[in-house]
Amino acid sequence: MTETQPKSVDLLIEARWVVPVEPHGVVLENHAVAVDGDHIVALLPIDEARRAYVPRETISLGEHALIPGLVNSHTHNPMTLLRGLADDLPLMVWLQQHIWPAEAKVMGPEFVRDGVELAVAEMLRGGTTCANENYFFPDAIGATYRKLGFRAVVGLPVIEFPTAWAKTQDEYFERACEVHDSFRGDALLGTAFVPHAPYTVSDESFERIRVLADQLDIPVHLHTHETAQEVEDEKKKSGLRPFQRLQKLGVVNDRLIAVHMTQLTDGEIAACVEAGVSVVHCPESNLKLASGFCQAEKLRKAGVNLALGTDGCASNNDLDMFGEMRTAALLAKAVAGDAAAFDAPFALRAATLNGAKAMGLDAKIGSIEPGKQADLAAVRLDDLETQPLFNVPSQLVYATGRHQVTDVWIAGRRKLAGRVLVDMDVDGMLARTRAWRERIAAH
Amino acid sequence: MTETQPKSVDLLIEARWVVPVEPHGVVLENHAVAVDGDHIVALLPIDEARRAYVPRETISLGEHALIPGLVNSHTHNPMTLLRGLADDLPLMVWLQQHIWPAEAKVMGPEFVRDGVELAVAEMLRGGTTCANENYFFPDAIGATYRKLGFRAVVGLPVIEFPTAWAKTQDEYFERACEVHDSFRGDALLGTAFVPHAPYTVSDESFERIRVLADQLDIPVHLHTHETAQEVEDEKKKSGLRPFQRLQKLGVVNDRLIAVHMTQLTDGEIAACVEAGVSVVHCPESNLKLASGFCQAEKLRKAGVNLALGTDGCASNNDLDMFGEMRTAALLAKAVAGDAAAFDAPFALRAATLNGAKAMGLDAKIGSIEPGKQADLAAVRLDDLETQPLFNVPSQLVYATGRHQVTDVWIAGRRKLAGRVLVDMDVDGMLARTRAWRERIAAH
Repeated sequence: MTETQPKSVDLLIEARWVVPVEPHGVVLENHAVAVDGDHIVALLPIDEARRAYVPRETISLGEHALIPGLVNSHTHNPMTLLRGLADDLPLMVWLQQHIWPAEAKVMGPEFVRDGVELAVAEMLRGGTTCANENYFFPDAIGATYRKLGFRAVVGLPVIEFPTAWAKTQDEYFERACEVHDSFRGDALLGTAFVPHAPYTVSDESFERIRVLADQLDIPVHLHTHETAQEVEDEKKKSGLRPFQRLQKLGVVNDRLIAVHMTQLTDGEIAACVEAGVSVVHCPESNLKLASGFCQAEKLRKAGVNLALGTDGCASNNDLDMFGEMRTAALLAKAVAGDAAAFDAPFALRAATLNGAKAMGLDAKIGSIEPGKQADLAAVRLDDLETQPLFNVPSQLVYATGRHQVTDVWIAGRRKLAGRVLVDMDVDGMLARTRAWRERIAAH
Repeated sequence: MTETQPKSVDLLIEARWVVPVEPHGVVLENHAVAVDGDHIVALLPIDEARRAYVPRETISLGEHALIPGLVNSHTHNPMTLLRGLADDLPLMVWLQQHIWPAEAKVMGPEFVRDGVELAVAEMLRGGTTCANENYFFPDAIGATYRKLGFRAVVGLPVIEFPTAWAKTQDEYFERACEVHDSFRGDALLGTAFVPHAPYTVSDESFERIRVLADQLDIPVHLHTHETAQEVEDEKKKSGLRPFQRLQKLGVVNDRLIAVHMTQLTDGEIAACVEAGVSVVHCPESNLKLASGFCQAEKLRKAGVNLALGTDGCASNNDLDMFGEMRTAALLAKAVAGDAAAFDAPFALRAATLNGAKAMGLDAKIGSIEPGKQADLAAVRLDDLETQPLFNVPSQLVYATGRHQVTDVWIAGRRKLAGRVLVDMDVDGMLARTRAWRERIAAH
């Protein structure tokens, strides 16, 4: 036996359980994660960790599961300020009479900044450490994530009509490239093109996106096959299903993050596997808007990279990835007619590593492995609502509430400490939220 | 203007919002509920209440919604001790290889007592004040509810095979009548027959239940039409669908609480309305066990009295009626293909007054009305996860977590005070829960 000198590290997190996600399905008991700077240096039994490391800080989580920070793979976080503005309405009434008029009134850098700030607070308190963002004013959005030290892939919007963000197709692309450049090399921020959807984006724009996404090496993140109506409408317009049109335009490849996908043929599922497309399942949004049922288990079995997203708070109405894991796992069983479908370990994987992979970040985040970024969430499991405890992944997916998240780290920095948001002005944020509420409600 | 002398009452609860449930859809701002003894004496604006009453105690809930205590219309609360024991398994593997062997090992008065105690703690912390219970050893179950001051309708089980509770058909009925007698006149407890399901109960037993339920004036609470398979099996056996067999046996009437009902013809739905049958929808259990999709919106539109239940913790895995309201409202929209279906005010009604009606308790509980029992729950809405706030019922159903429940009263007695369980030995309960866990896991 060789004696080695203990190494100095910034942080040792000792946990009753660690769920690393990779290897799949594993639960480690009484393990510790050693963190130095922004990354994980080791995952090992607590007693070994105490011999091997001299940490500047030790945190003991005796009744907790430590999991990778959750990855919300589809969200419109500024819309957190529209939470519950209009519910229980038919889709077009909701959009045309409530959401769009409200947005028209408030849209701008201040609105997105304050919305993202509220969203970051909610995400951190629910164990989420990375968001795949999709909204206008990505410059202000990115600046807010950066200021708050939150990891995000910021969407560069393209849509075929003028908005407060850009007036012409050229302007959308110019501004997209400017925003991309301004965040280049940022430790926590990436970008993706976010063409809204096939029905609102022209062939020409998709062709420009295909070329630019390759040049900039970034994902293309869009809504598609959300409803049967969308598929029918596209068929009437172009003679093709939206997915076929995207194939023809050359954007069905491993950069593509296709959100919703409730309507898919077996051939389209096979094409997603072959091309390396990631699918983001947003079960609560699909239910609430009566969009349709995503064949999540079929996608999983076929080998599609399947991630989870909450969608925006105007159609969910929260950013709760624990709730989304639970709904996804429950719903997939009923849709597949198989109680063994979409099991708890897979739900955890979809909400972490598969999301990271969709965004091209799986070498960096999504699991607790040495060398990866220290994006971590600790979840207290000794509440009576999570007792007795027979199986940690089951408990996390089927019984745990997001309020049981106690501590969160992003890139080694503690963002939530014993339920308290670190370095966030919560009172100021709530006051700004109330002010937006008054302004929006007055319409 | 006449001056009247202020009246003395035990308690005045002043709330930012009161959602009385009846009248339907109403939200009252800055209202107070005056409580004397076990019942509500008035619901009126705070300023009027302060003039009209001299309360022994005043509680001010400046950021809260006060709602009727939630009614869990179908549960097997002793099974809370089996939470998460076996998940993600096909139904028969789950039952035969996990749940039944575990139950066989632990079933008895101590198990049901400790399970119900844990369940009561969980229900109170989630705003639930009444349970429609369905399990063996109703004597020990009822004694536990009584000791803890929790309102329940305790099921008197009938099943066509021997269990630890009773060995013969006659013994099931003798014990049922004994238990009914022992709780007769209890302020918080009622009883109901709980024949397990058509496929496990004989015609003869159903006939005895029909006669006895009339004599004792109690409901008949059973699982049926849970899966398509159940319907097919019954058709093979008796030539009838289960509902038709129940009709033939004379138990389809306004005493019937039919749980699950995922498989119904339009004719059966009409027959439920005509006969005054109550249906209990358990959306999370139906999803998790892949049982099928209840046509909840169709039932609602037809005018069926539709209530909500969590089912037992072995198939949910919680007793969270906030979660159940949310899942019910979301799922019903997708099943109906209508985003306006099963709106938030209806979800609140299903989880309160409709449950009370199913159990024959709607004159006593289920809404905040003078003369009714003071079964109340206060929900804090100033958490950042429920901001901004545009619409109280929406926020309660689509964004609120059960941990936002701060205070609960049953029959005027405070059972949860600022998140603290009143007069419950939580540490002892958790120690007993852990001991059961060890015993069950060792099998």
